[in-house]
Amino acid sequence: MAFTEFRPLDEKSLIDYIKATPSLSSKLGNKFDDLTIKEVGDGNLNFVYIVFNSSGSFVIKQALPYIRCIGESWPMTKERAYFETLALKEHGRFCPEHTPEVYHFDRTMSLLAMRYIEPPHIILRKGLIAGIEYPLLAEHISEYMANTLFFTSLLFRTTTEHKRDVAEFCGNVELCRLTEQVVFSDPYKISQYNRWTAPYLDRDAEAVREDNLLKLEVAELKSKFCERAQALIHGDLHTGSVMVTPKSTQVIDPEFAFYGPMGFDIGAFLGNLILAFFAQDGHCDQVNDRKAYKEWILKAIEETWNLFHYKFIALWDKHKNGSGEAYLPAIYDNPEVQLLVQKSYMKDLFHDSLGFGAAKMIRRIVGVAHVEDFESITDASKRATCERRALNLAKSILKERRKFEGITEVISAIRQF
Amino acid sequence: MAFTEFRPLDEKSLIDYIKATPSLSSKLGNKFDDLTIKEVGDGNLNFVYIVFNSSGSFVIKQALPYIRCIGESWPMTKERAYFETLALKEHGRFCPEHTPEVYHFDRTMSLLAMRYIEPPHIILRKGLIAGIEYPLLAEHISEYMANTLFFTSLLFRTTTEHKRDVAEFCGNVELCRLTEQVVFSDPYKISQYNRWTAPYLDRDAEAVREDNLLKLEVAELKSKFCERAQALIHGDLHTGSVMVTPKSTQVIDPEFAFYGPMGFDIGAFLGNLILAFFAQDGHCDQVNDRKAYKEWILKAIEETWNLFHYKFIALWDKHKNGSGEAYLPAIYDNPEVQLLVQKSYMKDLFHDSLGFGAAKMIRRIVGVAHVEDFESITDASKRATCERRALNLAKSILKERRKFEGITEVISAIRQF
Ligand SMILES: Nc1ncnc2c1ncn2[C@@H]1O[C@H](COP(=O)(O)OP(=O)(O)O)[C@@H](O)[C@H]1O
Ligand SMILES: Nc1ncnc2c1ncn2[C@@H]1O[C@H](COP(=O)(O)OP(=O)(O)O)[C@@H](O)[C@H]1O
Ligand SMILES: [Mg+2]
Ligand SMILES: [Mg+2]
Ligand SMILES: [Mg+2]
Ligand SMILES: [Mg+2]
Ligand SMILES: [Mg+2]
Repeated sequence: MAFTEFRPLDEKSLIDYIKATPSLSSKLGNKFDDLTIKEVGDGNLNFVYIVFNSSGSFVIKQALPYIRCIGESWPMTKERAYFETLALKEHGRFCPEHTPEVYHFDRTMSLLAMRYIEPPHIILRKGLIAGIEYPLLAEHISEYMANTLFFTSLLFRTTTEHKRDVAEFCGNVELCRLTEQVVFSDPYKISQYNRWTAPYLDRDAEAVREDNLLKLEVAELKSKFCERAQALIHGDLHTGSVMVTPKSTQVIDPEFAFYGPMGFDIGAFLGNLILAFFAQDGHCDQVNDRKAYKEWILKAIEETWNLFHYKFIALWDKHKNGSGEAYLPAIYDNPEVQLLVQKSYMKDLFHDSLGFGAAKMIRRIVGVAHVEDFESITDASKRATCERRALNLAKSILKERRKFEGITEVISAIRQF
Repeated sequence: MAFTEFRPLDEKSLIDYIKATPSLSSKLGNKFDDLTIKEVGDGNLNFVYIVFNSSGSFVIKQALPYIRCIGESWPMTKERAYFETLALKEHGRFCPEHTPEVYHFDRTMSLLAMRYIEPPHIILRKGLIAGIEYPLLAEHISEYMANTLFFTSLLFRTTTEHKRDVAEFCGNVELCRLTEQVVFSDPYKISQYNRWTAPYLDRDAEAVREDNLLKLEVAELKSKFCERAQALIHGDLHTGSVMVTPKSTQVIDPEFAFYGPMGFDIGAFLGNLILAFFAQDGHCDQVNDRKAYKEWILKAIEETWNLFHYKFIALWDKHKNGSGEAYLPAIYDNPEVQLLVQKSYMKDLFHDSLGFGAAKMIRRIVGVAHVEDFESITDASKRATCERRALNLAKSILKERRKFEGITEVISAIRQF
């Protein structure tokens, strides 16, 4: 059977596809009698199949021309599979330890094959709901962010390379537009897609739509998102895009990747950890009050930023005489000015991260796509209480982010809400 | 004779080219006996021919694969003619009154034909040196900037259109890199191309290279220039790119066009007016002390910004329920928040403009390409005095630009140096 035209696969036709694709069948030792195929796409957009037999394994991800969780009524280019593949490869070059290897890509079929991130890996968000500590999480994710962001920025690249790649990823505009809508627009207006824990949060959702200062700030962030090509960002770096064991951290699902503001990735991750923190009171019971776990989350937030900062600056120092064109050595190679520009760069990045993180929190409470951290709290009143605290913190951070001088002040703020 | 491969034209071969190009020969009524062709390229980069006979006229501009004023030792893509044509057409759509019409473009030959901006039009810079007042200049140039910048920004465009055009103009990277080098880098380091009025300004040039706060600020501007796709900017909007009569204003030479920060254009124009102001003391004599003319320049600076502000906001108000996606009507359509976001937008744009304007002034005094305003002052000591005042003002503006609340404060600062 030939696959010369796009068609959605299912467990059955996928076998034919694999048989017709040498690079995939060879991964299975060309044996098909003991094959297991399982669709596991719990995500919002795509179909994901785990494929394995006694000889090997991989994961197949296929994009259909609409958004899976909504259906054909919300069309979405299947070219996203192409950009996901590009981003996986590019990020994989700079951070192979935390990025699944791509085995195969088929643009016609909008399909990629990648390493199967095997059990006991689970989605980080589920681990956070279950109250599991990941001692290496901050270390790993900061490594991932520092490497992928630094090496795709003008701190490492020439403007020639940069403009070439920016142009390429402009093609991922439909996915960017989805973010523009669901993160920066819908929560601040009446939208058929918005939902929240009603009736408890009716007034809170309305207050978001009527808060002029909040709208001013979110407009500034949106303009950064649309206009600032700072680095190749993942674009959807929430805790559902990270698979973990206590020893390993793997970042999946960069289909929203494009050249955008670094703070969007950092904020997505930190913001989702903060959501996990506020959800804990909905998950505690007599056996486990989750107090210690909440402290661990706060520590993970603090360490993620601090380690990111440390690693990012270390990369900068290491490559300061390299080919990056933002700060030419002939101009910036003296310790005093180097310190000055790094401080200024990191301060702006910190404030961007807080802003984007806050915007991502808000949209998860009053926008279309919610997070399992809260959704799994069955008592709606209890859930609303958790959500309101997170929402109020996020609003305050979004408006006052420039006043925060360091991550410890953010931790203090989280404790106050 | 066929022109199927690139070759540099001269007055003679240009005739053959015109004969072989119906759209051009028809402009001349297909008569070639009374033809006049004159090379007038006084610019730095390209060859410009005026072509006319009793039936008609046009201008031919051809890009060679190097920088004209330096020679073949500084190669430069001839594709710049393509981007110049694109930009002329795009800006012409939004502001035909101030943009020469394009008649013909030949990518193979890197050649465009456009309206001949006939005498008594002269280059604005020459008019400023001669002390001629242009009562409509601020009105016209603010119209040009407001229209070209507004209509190519996300205030008017969808992000789909925006990303498509951003990607296209990423191709003009070599010209962007030239700006990066000569505006944001060379003046702040030792460079073989730098020059200044020696020995008078030796210490001043050195001080620029040793000023860490200045380097910090210029890095921020460079990053905006490289990363922020705010609108389709002209990219080289100094007073040598404007042709004027007292009644007409035409903007030529947008070969540096790309999606960049709006403030780069506004700053280029204002900064060059400020240079013209400081050059006046080198041009005054017993007949004319240039005092009144200096006042006129200050008024032109003030009016340019004020009229730009007025027109830009008027366009925004007029199109606020249009297809622009930066501020969706469903979120921002109430007078209070509209005022809030416009104030914030214009404040940032003002500070950007001051920053870029200052950087453009500095580079004209200690960088590779100087301005005739100063160069035509033959007494080197007198010239250095004028240049030093401009340089000191520019340094102060670059560092303190965020403290300026309006254009009148800038005018006061100019008077103080
Ligand atoms: N490489 C992989 N290894 C193991 N499981 C995976 C892999 N990629 C995806 N998955 C599983 O499939 C789910 C959906 O994948 P994801 O890439 O997030 O799709 P979507 O784009 O639809 O959100 C993930 O939550 C994870 O459980
Ligand atoms: N359309 C035109 N009409 C009349 N003169 C023109 C026209 N275009 C260019 N010129 C003349 O040629 C000179 C150089 O043109 P310009 O486009 O600035 O070239 P460059 O890119 O080399 O700076 C201008 O200063 C002006 O005198
Ligand atoms: Mg996902
Ligand atoms: Mg998502
Ligand atoms: Mg996804
Ligand atoms: Mg020119
Ligand atoms: Mg030019």
